Amino acid sequence: MMETHLQMELQELKENLLKMAALVEGAIRDAVQSLAKRDSDLARKTFGMEDRINKLEIVIDEMCLKLLALRQPMAADLRFITSAMKIITDLERMGDQAVNIAERAVSLNQEPQIKPYIDIPKMAEIVQSMVKDVLDAFVNHDPKLARSVCERDDMVDGLNNQVVRELLTYMMSDPKTITRAVHLMIVFRCLERIADHATNIAEDVIFMVDALVIKHHADANKEG
Amino acid sequence: MMETHLQMELQELKENLLKMAALVEGAIRDAVQSLAKRDSDLARKTFGMEDRINKLEIVIDEMCLKLLALRQPMAADLRFITSAMKIITDLERMGDQAVNIAERAVSLNQEPQIKPYIDIPKMAEIVQSMVKDVLDAFVNHDPKLARSVCERDDMVDGLNNQVVRELLTYMMSDPKTITRAVHLMIVFRCLERIADHATNIAEDVIFMVDALVIKHHADANKEG
Repeated sequence: MMETHLQMELQELKENLLKMAALVEGAIRDAVQSLAKRDSDLARKTFGMEDRINKLEIVIDEMCLKLLALRQPMAADLRFITSAMKIITDLERMGDQAVNIAERAVSLNQEPQIKPYIDIPKMAEIVQSMVKDVLDAFVNHDPKLARSVCERDDMVDGLNNQVVRELLTYMMSDPKTITRAVHLMIVFRCLERIADHATNIAEDVIFMVDALVIKHHADANKEG
Repeated sequence: MMETHLQMELQELKENLLKMAALVEGAIRDAVQSLAKRDSDLARKTFGMEDRINKLEIVIDEMCLKLLALRQPMAADLRFITSAMKIITDLERMGDQAVNIAERAVSLNQEPQIKPYIDIPKMAEIVQSMVKDVLDAFVNHDPKLARSVCERDDMVDGLNNQVVRELLTYMMSDPKTITRAVHLMIVFRCLERIADHATNIAEDVIFMVDALVIKHHADANKEG
């Protein structure tokens, strides 16, 4: 009976985690689209999404505490719940970064574009896929998917370095672009930070699954 | 007996948290001094410190999991342990930021200084005090000290904005300084991020203590 309760509650926890990840994905998409489409109303929508993300973090955190206190989970379930508590902190901070992007978009939308924003939606798409996949990897204990998230982080870093170089060229050739170029650099850094959060989670997933595998082998040897 | 074990182990946990915070403080100090004193050997020392910080994170994480599994702590102790698990993630990432600063220092030390580095040690000192105080606030359940950490975050943001404006002026008047100025902006952003991590912890401490106070009142009313 206790076991069934715990399993049902863990299922509910997983659904809430995926819901929170979907909200974060949406916030990133809206923030970046508000810049790409020069739509400041869309930017302001991001602020409301952040509020929902923050509230869901508190709900999930309380849910995890209750599970720990009332169900006294062991081994794999215990590790899953404490990891979930860390992951929601990462997701909440990704939401903060989306808001940062939206704020820069509001400023940038008031001035002429330095250059067409091709790289930003491209980078944002990779970053959104990282957020989605790393949560799927977590709830399904899928280290292979988690590793693919880590690989995409290198792509994001590569894109970011390329864009920074390009923006430096603009700044040097025309000092009037410097303020806008710095805003854009910060937008790219925000995306890079979101990718870093996703990578942190991915590393935890790999660590968690490997630890379980190692532990499983140790237990098997003990039994043998 | 069980109670005494738990209390002793919580004491050991607190000592390890303070030790990890002290290492992070040291890493920030060395990274910033390596820039201010143009000492790249000191910068490389930061990389070794980060390794110790990462190892201590794993030790503390395992310690917390054992406490949760074996001692089944309730209410305040449970919240303390799960908060500790989140805090060590923040501390570990502060260590990463110190390494970022050290890496920028190695690059910047190879070129002439754009300007005397007065603001960086000043900002670093505030940030180090935030790291120290927020961990003290956590282990001593001191929301007042936690609030003072949040206030210092505003000072750090203010200093950062002022420095960014100053660096933009350098860049506009002499494009040859742009690459170095961008490196310096990133150093300031790293310090700002460390301050953000400290502020996140401070907010958790305030939330944790307030939640306990509210819970305490609720329990008292139930009893009355």
